[in-house]
Amino acid sequence: MNDYQFKLVKIAGDFVSHRHAHTDEVFIVLEGKMNIEFENEIVEINTGEMIVVPKGEKHKPFAKEECKIMLVEPTGVVNTGDAGGELTAPDNQWI
Amino acid sequence: MNDYQFKLVKIAGDFVSHRHAHTDEVFIVLEGKMNIEFENEIVEINTGEMIVVPKGEKHKPFAKEECKIMLVEPTGVVNTGDAGGELTAPDNQWI
Repeated sequence: MNDYQFKLVKIAGDFVSHRHAHTDEVFIVLEGKMNIEFENEIVEINTGEMIVVPKGEKHKPFAKEECKIMLVEPTGVVNTGDAGGELTAPDNQWI
Repeated sequence: MNDYQFKLVKIAGDFVSHRHAHTDEVFIVLEGKMNIEFENEIVEINTGEMIVVPKGEKHKPFAKEECKIMLVEPTGVVNTGDAGGELTAPDNQWI
C-alpha cells in the first residue's frame, strides 16, 4: 500500500542482530511464537500479536519452532538492516 | 509505525461510501467477515484475509454481523474520507 510492503515470512532459528537506521518495522505473528532480543530485554510475540521495532533499535528475531509472520515496512528495506551477511534476502519475491 | 497507524475497529452494518484522495487503505479481518462494495463489484473479506483499497477508489464497507478488523493507513486519515457526515469518528482514540 502506498510505498509500504506487507511481507509474509516463515522463520525458524536465529536471525542476525541488526538495525534499520531509517524506518520502524512491524512484526505481526500469524501462527506460532517468536521472540525479539533487544539490547536490554527479550520480548515474546504470540499468535495474533504485533510489535513495532523503533528505527535505529538493535534487534535480533528468533523462533524456536517455525513461525509464520507478516512484516510491514517501507518498500526496499533490507531484511538484515545494517548487518548484511548471508541471511540477506532478495527483495520482492511475490507469492 | 513511522507516520502510519494500525487501528483496531469493530464494525457492524453499513458504512458510508467514500474515497480517500491521497492514500491507499488496508483492511485486515481479525474476526468475522466483512464486505467492501466498490463501483463495479462487491468483495468479501474473511478472517485472516486482507485487502488494499487503492487511493481515490470509491468504497463502502459493510458487515452483516459484528466484525473485528485492523486498518492500516497514514496518521490523520478521516474514516469517512470525502463523504463526511455523522459516521465520521474522532482520530486517535487509544485503547
